[in-house]
Amino acid sequence: MKPIAGGVTAPKGFLANGMYCGIKRSGRFDLALIASEVPAAAAGVFTKNSIKAAPLLVSMKHLRHRKAQAIIINSGNANCFTGAFGLHYARQTAKRIAQGLGIKPQDVVVASTGIIGKPLPFKKIADATAVLIKGLSRTGGKRAARGILTTDTCIKEKAFRLRLGGKLITIGGCAKGSGMIDPSMATMLAFITTDAAVQPKLLKKALETVTENTFNRITVDGCMSTNDMVTILANGTAGNKTITRTRTEFHKFCAALESVCLDLAKKIVKDGEGATKFLEIQVCGAKTERQAKRAAKAIANSNLVKTAVYGSNPNWGRVAAAVGSLAIPGVTPERLKVKFSPFHKKEVWIHVDLNIGSHKATVYTCDLSHEYLRINTKYN
Amino acid sequence: MKPIAGGVTAPKGFLANGMYCGIKRSGRFDLALIASEVPAAAAGVFTKNSIKAAPLLVSMKHLRHRKAQAIIINSGNANCFTGAFGLHYARQTAKRIAQGLGIKPQDVVVASTGIIGKPLPFKKIADATAVLIKGLSRTGGKRAARGILTTDTCIKEKAFRLRLGGKLITIGGCAKGSGMIDPSMATMLAFITTDAAVQPKLLKKALETVTENTFNRITVDGCMSTNDMVTILANGTAGNKTITRTRTEFHKFCAALESVCLDLAKKIVKDGEGATKFLEIQVCGAKTERQAKRAAKAIANSNLVKTAVYGSNPNWGRVAAAVGSLAIPGVTPERLKVKFSPFHKKEVWIHVDLNIGSHKATVYTCDLSHEYLRINTKYN
Repeated sequence: MKPIAGGVTAPKGFLANGMYCGIKRSGRFDLALIASEVPAAAAGVFTKNSIKAAPLLVSMKHLRHRKAQAIIINSGNANCFTGAFGLHYARQTAKRIAQGLGIKPQDVVVASTGIIGKPLPFKKIADATAVLIKGLSRTGGKRAARGILTTDTCIKEKAFRLRLGGKLITIGGCAKGSGMIDPSMATMLAFITTDAAVQPKLLKKALETVTENTFNRITVDGCMSTNDMVTILANGTAGNKTITRTRTEFHKFCAALESVCLDLAKKIVKDGEGATKFLEIQVCGAKTERQAKRAAKAIANSNLVKTAVYGSNPNWGRVAAAVGSLAIPGVTPERLKVKFSPFHKKEVWIHVDLNIGSHKATVYTCDLSHEYLRINTKYN
Repeated sequence: MKPIAGGVTAPKGFLANGMYCGIKRSGRFDLALIASEVPAAAAGVFTKNSIKAAPLLVSMKHLRHRKAQAIIINSGNANCFTGAFGLHYARQTAKRIAQGLGIKPQDVVVASTGIIGKPLPFKKIADATAVLIKGLSRTGGKRAARGILTTDTCIKEKAFRLRLGGKLITIGGCAKGSGMIDPSMATMLAFITTDAAVQPKLLKKALETVTENTFNRITVDGCMSTNDMVTILANGTAGNKTITRTRTEFHKFCAALESVCLDLAKKIVKDGEGATKFLEIQVCGAKTERQAKRAAKAIANSNLVKTAVYGSNPNWGRVAAAVGSLAIPGVTPERLKVKFSPFHKKEVWIHVDLNIGSHKATVYTCDLSHEYLRINTKYN
């Protein structure tokens, strides 16, 4: 397995495009389309927030038959808390793309990111559909990666290539996100493509497992979005024998998928709103992996730990207090061990040993800076 | 029931003092003593953090016999994560005060607040004991209120007087706290005194109930301290018939105690680290009071809500997303109602109706400002 250039159009049989259709006042790209030349096995994971945006409701329904051929994404408007009209527009968006591509609306996944509660300017999207589809190309991955951004300062894409069942297969992806949530301007979205042939059920299993270990291990501000989603399309054009069992080939595929997702996840944290430092928080000695993750998240989401890192003020008391606040039985000042790298560097690690078990977990986050406050108080 | 001037020395039979003993580099008061002229019924509630500071362990033990006569508090050092020596010094502090007052060490409650993990400068406290005790007076409440402060910008005290069982009784208190936690420099402490006669078991019940509705309803940064504690002494010098049942007199006492505690709790939030605005968050239409409180806390602890208020940018999407992140069954965009007062005012209220039940809860917090970051990054 080795990293290669590109993102969603790195695997065979995928086309993409990105453009400006008039949603954002800044004039930046606000529309993206990813399409497979042939029908693909598809799976998605969606925010657990009970306030789910309209495009998520539509996509969840469309993905029930476990295949898809295109993903349409707009940025600048979340189409969330937009009632019956929002739902109607999300469906219409899928329909327009389907008509243009000559496929069924159920084969189109819809995603949105941007401000909550404002009506989706559907006409702008509808009017741009023809140009968007016409511009689809094998080199359009970067344009699509740009079309999904909001407060992000850079595009985020990654691809890996590996040998699977005697064939070279590629997994590529792009993501956006600058806060786990910013209902005004951000959300975490990731779109993965692969030319590997994978049975739909196993594809979903792979995506869920990998998401848990990658995207679900990052946090910028501890908040959860109404629009978060990760989708994968596997179009099988690499020609490998379809993966139908959880054996070696499946595990190799999962490892590669995890590499792509972890890279994208880390890129999101590094581009976190106002981030000046990247933090890797590892908790070991827990009774379960879940407990280790919970402790690591508590540290990662502590404003006091984040500000201590921002200020380059090593403060293990804040780390200990964050762990202690979970009141995990058996965790005592005598058992708890805290170690960390110098706080003044760009990348900081914090290692915590609970000393009550043998499980561990790693979580990634960034510091809390004046710039985060500036971004989140000065927007309009 | 009416508010009166003063704090812990407003009730009959209580003396207090505060002074500088050399712990703080700033030269500000760092030692306080509150004492009853006669043995008092006593109760305490302590942080649920599994990393508990040494003085809390000592005080929890001392309060087992449900009476006490004095409370000794130092600020500037939390005596937390200080091992066997820390525990020894906490016990010795109680012993010194007991010797000076001619009472038993078990009748002394010990509290500390300040930096975590640094050895308690016990000699400074021991050397100051005689002067501290000599200075005890009926007007020393303000000095004690000053002796317990850390990053606080003002003293916090309150007293109420009411007629109970034909006698005038008084409840007074002082508190400190500028963050729910700041393992470096802060913690929430509150000390309540009353000349009412209350059976120890009922006193504890009253304190627990009232704490749940007051101190446990505030949050500055969502973090939990290792040193939080609230203690009450009831010395019975008002001459009322001892309250032994949960009848009218008990409820009147609880209502007055709640008035004192709620006032102190709000003062802590208003003096929250970097606070520029006071937020009252009320959630109604919940299935249980606990659920309402959980939703209100989620809103109160959302950095995005806090920064929106700080920036005077009304953003109900952030409020809705914070509630939605709890994934409460039945809470939908259609049901959820969000209302709020203008964000540019000094006091802001946010009302949320979940529309799934009939219970409600109110939580108090402050905004997240550049000053919070400055305080928590620039300390030493």
